[in-house]
Amino acid sequence: MPKLVEYKDMAPRAKAVVEGIAAARGIDPSAINNVWKALARHPGVMEQFAAEMKAAFAPGKLDPLTKELVYLAVSIANQCEYCIASHGAMARRKGMTDEMHEEFMRVVLAAQKGNKLVTAYRVPVDEAFDEA
Amino acid sequence: MPKLVEYKDMAPRAKAVVEGIAAARGIDPSAINNVWKALARHPGVMEQFAAEMKAAFAPGKLDPLTKELVYLAVSIANQCEYCIASHGAMARRKGMTDEMHEEFMRVVLAAQKGNKLVTAYRVPVDEAFDEA
Amino acid sequence: MPKLVEYKDMAPRAKAVVEGIAAARGIDPSAINNVWKALARHPGVMEQFAAEMKAAFAPGKLDPLTKELVYLAVSIANQCEYCIASHGAMARRKGMTDEMHEEFMRVVLAAQKGNKLVTAYRVPVDEAFDEA
Amino acid sequence: MPKLVEYKDMAPRAKAVVEGIAAARGIDPSAINNVWKALARHPGVMEQFAAEMKAAFAPGKLDPLTKELVYLAVSIANQCEYCIASHGAMARRKGMTDEMHEEFMRVVLAAQKGNKLVTAYRVPVDEAFDEA
Amino acid sequence: MPKLVEYKDMAPRAKAVVEGIAAARGIDPSAINNVWKALARHPGVMEQFAAEMKAAFAPGKLDPLTKELVYLAVSIANQCEYCIASHGAMARRKGMTDEMHEEFMRVVLAAQKGNKLVTAYRVPVDEAFDEA
Amino acid sequence: MPKLVEYKDMAPRAKAVVEGIAAARGIDPSAINNVWKALARHPGVMEQFAAEMKAAFAPGKLDPLTKELVYLAVSIANQCEYCIASHGAMARRKGMTDEMHEEFMRVVLAAQKGNKLVTAYRVPVDEAFDEA
Repeated sequence: MPKLVEYKDMAPRAKAVVEGIAAARGIDPSAINNVWKALARHPGVMEQFAAEMKAAFAPGKLDPLTKELVYLAVSIANQCEYCIASHGAMARRKGMTDEMHEEFMRVVLAAQKGNKLVTAYRVPVDEAFDEA
Repeated sequence: MPKLVEYKDMAPRAKAVVEGIAAARGIDPSAINNVWKALARHPGVMEQFAAEMKAAFAPGKLDPLTKELVYLAVSIANQCEYCIASHGAMARRKGMTDEMHEEFMRVVLAAQKGNKLVTAYRVPVDEAFDEA
Repeated sequence: MPKLVEYKDMAPRAKAVVEGIAAARGIDPSAINNVWKALARHPGVMEQFAAEMKAAFAPGKLDPLTKELVYLAVSIANQCEYCIASHGAMARRKGMTDEMHEEFMRVVLAAQKGNKLVTAYRVPVDEAFDEA
Repeated sequence: MPKLVEYKDMAPRAKAVVEGIAAARGIDPSAINNVWKALARHPGVMEQFAAEMKAAFAPGKLDPLTKELVYLAVSIANQCEYCIASHGAMARRKGMTDEMHEEFMRVVLAAQKGNKLVTAYRVPVDEAFDEA
Repeated sequence: MPKLVEYKDMAPRAKAVVEGIAAARGIDPSAINNVWKALARHPGVMEQFAAEMKAAFAPGKLDPLTKELVYLAVSIANQCEYCIASHGAMARRKGMTDEMHEEFMRVVLAAQKGNKLVTAYRVPVDEAFDEA
Repeated sequence: MPKLVEYKDMAPRAKAVVEGIAAARGIDPSAINNVWKALARHPGVMEQFAAEMKAAFAPGKLDPLTKELVYLAVSIANQCEYCIASHGAMARRKGMTDEMHEEFMRVVLAAQKGNKLVTAYRVPVDEAFDEA
């Protein structure tokens, strides 16, 4: 199953998606990363995911690095190695220093522990949180 | 098992932890939230988690709201209702508007989908990410 | 969907499963716990799970409390509230003191953190572990 | 990202952590396993995790093998390959025979099934478990 | 946070989404189910999810009940109670009998066990599967 | 730990399991796939899993391809690479076309998103679903 389709071999719908992403990143379409080469087999899924990523990372009220860190946090919680590698690289390109990375890891690990603590001790939600 | 211990009934080690948290938040120790009332049964676990949370949220290179969003992202990925309620409330107190919340949700959901896509299509990590 | 079937209303195959469990525990079949009342709708699934639980908890090389702690550890990692409540109660009946419970929680939480650390830093398996 | 730092190249804080672990295990610091080589980039995270592991595995009321099995159970539930390899090796060193391993696996798999059964049938917690 | 917005109080974009769903189901918009009342706070997220669900359940090569069972299988694996309740109800409306439900549960539970077995024993992928 | 036992080297109980599976598939026992070579170390676990798989995939009210898709959906949600590779291959052998695969992926991804949406917004179950 893990077949990657190179840009030059993609169907037109897949090529169009890759060209859009490549243009936004200022890279050549042939240098697109593997997730898009894999998705090229299913253009419908590919178009929807590309649109969703574009909307998620569009300029807004949260800065680009914060968004990368949120994406990376979800990927660590879900244990997706590809996503950790790719969005870790993107976070560094968007300004994550090693010091920020360590702070980020502290929060991720504290959350991970807090999530399990609360479950293990079956802690009921405080009314104050619902009112907030 | 889900027994909550009120502040006035806690053992001295547990009381000390709660007093430290309450002082930092400017609240009365008796108004502490449920997770600490549950942890009071196990002071060793409680002290360690309090120290870990304090270190994770200490002032640093990432701003306080970014840290809350990272904590919240992990909690959604792990489906911890208590944590979503409590850290959602804290994120709002630290400045998360409804517009920011929607942007945050878009990134969380895109990550969630990206994580599963990559797994389902068994996408290998690009060499470029390891070099980054 | 969450319909519980009381013992007196169960089909014969389901009644037989409950009677076997009740006899082993020295309780009345009508006092069976909810998971069996829910499974009574699907006797094939019920029989298989009852056989699997009986084999898992049969006397062997691991003592009964160790087995309960292993079951409880998996249930916390999977965030199954019913299982945490039921097997937490059983662990206490089989001798888990509050002190042992705290030690157990320390190991569970360290594992939880270790699991995510290793994923986040993409740590390769040491050759020595494969040889062990 | 998956950069391993050898002992000789570590910063002093990281070296100190490794020396403490190596001394406790009676091995040379240069033979430390990969998780510590990866963590060496972030000494704060490293120190905290080393302290947490030391506290979790300190002598207490639960025997060392039981603690390893609890750690391994969480790691299987969370699907952490590194942790399964490393703590599987440690469990064998602490006395886990193949027969005990099979019993352990039976309990882990029964728990795994029980956790999903209860969720799928939406089983409510019995009042008796809360009173226990 | 868990605020539900009734149809009559929704903003125009949210109302439009609900009207589309209600028309497709032949129900009154005011009878829409809770997930849409919750999403009404974030119309962008709501529109995207509605479009994604519509595309996923559009007539195609897989029959409607198969699609519901796939959705339900994912929801059980992810332990989403709301999704199990709602898509369980929809599967019954689309023809799932109690006998089919039991067969479905057998496959879900076998998969659940298989997934963990393979992880616990660290089974490498057979070359034959990649060629298939 | 990841030791595979070839058919010719298996103990009699393990050989018997493999022979049963090979006969049902019309293949030579020596061509059995890796999961059974790994399980051969623990014949009790192996026999139970073989029986469970046989019961799950026995002819019934759900067609064979639907069962494979349900198994595959759980495996994607649980991120089991081996299971995705093996049951993806089996689904193709049982008639899954690329078009059906894309429809299947759309439903899996919509479910994945729906599961997290509902958790993040803490959506309460509609009464109508419980009555259904």
